[in-house]
Amino acid sequence: MRTTVGIIGGGPAGLLLARLLHQEGIDCVVLEARARDYVERRQRAGMLEQGTVDALRACGAADRLAARGLVHQGIELRFDGERHHIDFPVLTGGRTVTIYAQTEIVKDLVALQLADGPPLLFEAEALTIEKPESGTPVVRFRHEGHEQTLSCDWVVGCDGFHGIARDTFPAGTGRTYAHDYPYSWLGVLADVAPSCDELIYARGEGGFALHSMRSAQVSRLYLQVPNGTDPEDWPDDRIWDELAARFAIDADWTLNRGPITAKSVTPMRSYVHEPMRHGRLLLAGDAAHIVPPTGAKGLNLAVSDVRLLARAFAELHRTGSEQLLDRYSASCLARVWQATRFSYDMTTMLHTRPDADPFDDRLQLARLRRITASRHAAAELAANYTGLPLER
Amino acid sequence: MRTTVGIIGGGPAGLLLARLLHQEGIDCVVLEARARDYVERRQRAGMLEQGTVDALRACGAADRLAARGLVHQGIELRFDGERHHIDFPVLTGGRTVTIYAQTEIVKDLVALQLADGPPLLFEAEALTIEKPESGTPVVRFRHEGHEQTLSCDWVVGCDGFHGIARDTFPAGTGRTYAHDYPYSWLGVLADVAPSCDELIYARGEGGFALHSMRSAQVSRLYLQVPNGTDPEDWPDDRIWDELAARFAIDADWTLNRGPITAKSVTPMRSYVHEPMRHGRLLLAGDAAHIVPPTGAKGLNLAVSDVRLLARAFAELHRTGSEQLLDRYSASCLARVWQATRFSYDMTTMLHTRPDADPFDDRLQLARLRRITASRHAAAELAANYTGLPLER
Repeated sequence: MRTTVGIIGGGPAGLLLARLLHQEGIDCVVLEARARDYVERRQRAGMLEQGTVDALRACGAADRLAARGLVHQGIELRFDGERHHIDFPVLTGGRTVTIYAQTEIVKDLVALQLADGPPLLFEAEALTIEKPESGTPVVRFRHEGHEQTLSCDWVVGCDGFHGIARDTFPAGTGRTYAHDYPYSWLGVLADVAPSCDELIYARGEGGFALHSMRSAQVSRLYLQVPNGTDPEDWPDDRIWDELAARFAIDADWTLNRGPITAKSVTPMRSYVHEPMRHGRLLLAGDAAHIVPPTGAKGLNLAVSDVRLLARAFAELHRTGSEQLLDRYSASCLARVWQATRFSYDMTTMLHTRPDADPFDDRLQLARLRRITASRHAAAELAANYTGLPLER
Repeated sequence: MRTTVGIIGGGPAGLLLARLLHQEGIDCVVLEARARDYVERRQRAGMLEQGTVDALRACGAADRLAARGLVHQGIELRFDGERHHIDFPVLTGGRTVTIYAQTEIVKDLVALQLADGPPLLFEAEALTIEKPESGTPVVRFRHEGHEQTLSCDWVVGCDGFHGIARDTFPAGTGRTYAHDYPYSWLGVLADVAPSCDELIYARGEGGFALHSMRSAQVSRLYLQVPNGTDPEDWPDDRIWDELAARFAIDADWTLNRGPITAKSVTPMRSYVHEPMRHGRLLLAGDAAHIVPPTGAKGLNLAVSDVRLLARAFAELHRTGSEQLLDRYSASCLARVWQATRFSYDMTTMLHTRPDADPFDDRLQLARLRRITASRHAAAELAANYTGLPLER
């Protein structure tokens, strides 16, 4: 098989890239290691920046999103017995965010791709990427019991943090930057209406808690827990009690409780691989960088990578110029580091470090108070949360 | 001896408080442990917020300041081969800062006090503060070879971080919050014209450097050095070479070198004591809190404490109400914690931690880049640097 752009990974990054390339008349093939059913069930992020919504709309993948996405005008910060609304449209000149689960985006993009798009192969596991430095890189993959090859002009690794693309960079051609946080998130899905119209970021006595939702009927809730926590140690009642305690604000506010349908523990990590290109192999999304989920940036960064990459391929296709492709890594990384900074700051401002001393505690409160007291500080949070411009 | 307000410490906090109380017709006595000559030579801070200048002007202590102070419209940030001007008036609606050495403020206030003010005793070392919980606290002090007593209605400890006032708080009535930074400043005074009209905050290869000045003829320069550094290990040439390297930006910019007249190493610490009042004993300035010098907040916090305190005594004097005195500690501490946060952020953004990893390095760069890219982020820096309002 041969194609112009071989895309490894059929998550939102790979699928959106395929869609954008298809619109530009550039042929591509998507190889996804898992089955369609598995891909369409993976629970991941669900908070879309304005630019992410715009990109999905522009490629015709936003019909269900428009009908079912929940537009949010802001978030709520809770700390020290206080609650504060951060009003995004007022602070950013009209920007909002939209709640729509990543898994729904994947379903929408898969349906479009299978209807009229370029080939999307499920259960096609990429094994190696060969000769990425050459003009004819080859992806060797296993599909329907056979090893096959995909010859490409370019290969894009959208295969996530544990994929093979990043590992294909020869030793000495890249550098990694990583930070592990001393806490994890215990996340649950519950079949109960959200207790609030907005996300609540709470700095409670026992640590951080996040109130979110997947839809008007499904709540998504998170608790800061120690690293290494076994979800089995958290029976449902304990989860609800701890959530209620961390969100507690006054007698008027109640946390809706309901059946918990999924429960998992996720460690928190920041990771950036530089550069995001080696020869004709390019990385996008989690394959190159991950952030802790506190800033809701992971999916959005993947989408902005892919938007920059589609532009670069379009320029090459129309004019023969590789200028944007040459700038791809640096353009992405500038934005990636800003999102990394924001995610780090949101995370460290709201979570309790196990070794925190009283000074750290007061410093966190001073940060939160400043955001609620200063228009500039609040506007900075809002600008970063709703998404920085694609390029300066 | 007896007075209404006994002030321990004849630094800028104690002297300004005496001046403000005198203006309100409230009698007070200032006890300063050192000789006049020593007090007038102590080298300390030199960057005054707008509000500090306003306070000195309002009490008639700003004649020399108006003539000799250097008004600064901003600061320069240098990092990664770039230089960026942060324009305070543009970002804050007209606010500036003024360079005028603390030691000059002390001279101005001492001269006023001796000319027409309430008693100011030099070489009067406070030994104990007795019965601060009662309506008649007594300061026992040594002066001219004799132990004497000063009976007061109120006692104010403006006696600095190592003074006796804070230690007079009985065990269990206060709490301290402290953070020690893993680096120090090597500061020098040099008889040479400043190399730049503004302060330069540089994040260089070898660490932080600050270019400042005392006057048009005297440069004040600082280098980040490891904790425990002996100034003797830094001959003048080594200092100039290291400063030049950290400020290096392009061939057009040169660091003026000249005779170094003073050299000292200062550790960096954040410290806050809560509350700032016990009975009829009140703390102001360094006696209650210290900050690392990076944000230029120490002297300015002392001045804002004293302004709030003078208002509170004036209210008591005019109306008999202790309401503002009762709010004094909380009002100060809200502002103190914001200055502590700002000083911490400026410090950690610009200094290189000995245990810094490449992720920390990139995160610092992302912070600095954001300040130069975002009007809101720059305005936050400018608002904090020029000084937050006295009260919200």
